[in-house]
Amino acid sequence: MRILGLDPSLSSTGWGVIEVENNRVRYLADGFIPTDTKMPIAARLEEINRTLRQVIETYQPDEAAIEKVFLNTNPESTIKLGMARGVVIMTPAQYGINVVEYEPNKVKKAVVGVGKAAKNQVETMVKILLPGCKPKNNDASDALAIALCHFQYRGSLRIK
Amino acid sequence: MRILGLDPSLSSTGWGVIEVENNRVRYLADGFIPTDTKMPIAARLEEINRTLRQVIETYQPDEAAIEKVFLNTNPESTIKLGMARGVVIMTPAQYGINVVEYEPNKVKKAVVGVGKAAKNQVETMVKILLPGCKPKNNDASDALAIALCHFQYRGSLRIK
Repeated sequence: MRILGLDPSLSSTGWGVIEVENNRVRYLADGFIPTDTKMPIAARLEEINRTLRQVIETYQPDEAAIEKVFLNTNPESTIKLGMARGVVIMTPAQYGINVVEYEPNKVKKAVVGVGKAAKNQVETMVKILLPGCKPKNNDASDALAIALCHFQYRGSLRIK
Repeated sequence: MRILGLDPSLSSTGWGVIEVENNRVRYLADGFIPTDTKMPIAARLEEINRTLRQVIETYQPDEAAIEKVFLNTNPESTIKLGMARGVVIMTPAQYGINVVEYEPNKVKKAVVGVGKAAKNQVETMVKILLPGCKPKNNDASDALAIALCHFQYRGSLRIK
């Protein structure tokens, strides 16, 4: 069973895929989708959708997980994050893949053990929990952390 | 030449298509995409994307227009609108169709003549400017107004 973790943003959406077998996890792949700030937003979002569809078709995840949104005090930033998030959460649904949402603190707690962990602590733990994994950047390691969080909680969600 | 106007929202995205010939416009089609509030957001967004793709494949618009976003003071509402808007603005880009954004006041000014027009004034003018058109609801007539706004301003944008 494979889990796709997703960390959406307009400038760089992170993604990570882990495989679960006999209740153990292993690293499969990760990456991020940088988009050109000079391009129109519609084209940047289309690139995110297109690349994520390639990721899904390549790694065939069974389930997906995403962080609940961080509400920015700047409405302009909130709307941009919302736009990226809308496209990112919609893409697995195009393949009938369920997307589960987790609070950021829950993701950190699942991976580091505390809800207020720093970015580099998350990355360190991701590398320990997924031997052989060298996340491409912070967005990719955050996405893997979200996938690991879903692995930990999914039993209680009664997903098949 | 055909223009697709789009009025995004998670609960009911409006769309409208007009045809331009010899610098005159005529009504072609309109509608709205209601989504079930009990469904997961990802599935609702996927439904918006799927329905809009059917609209685009049916009416083959050459250009698309969308209102610039109304920034809500409630961040939860802003993020939801952002998510719908992200999917809506991305969908024409999946077909290589350019999407132009207009300020809400510019849309009202283009259709009614003043920037602070009421909803029903917009609908009344849409019906006058597009004879034979009976918009399905307010979201659909707003989408037609956005298409009409683009018809009025596109010359100055130097789109081919």
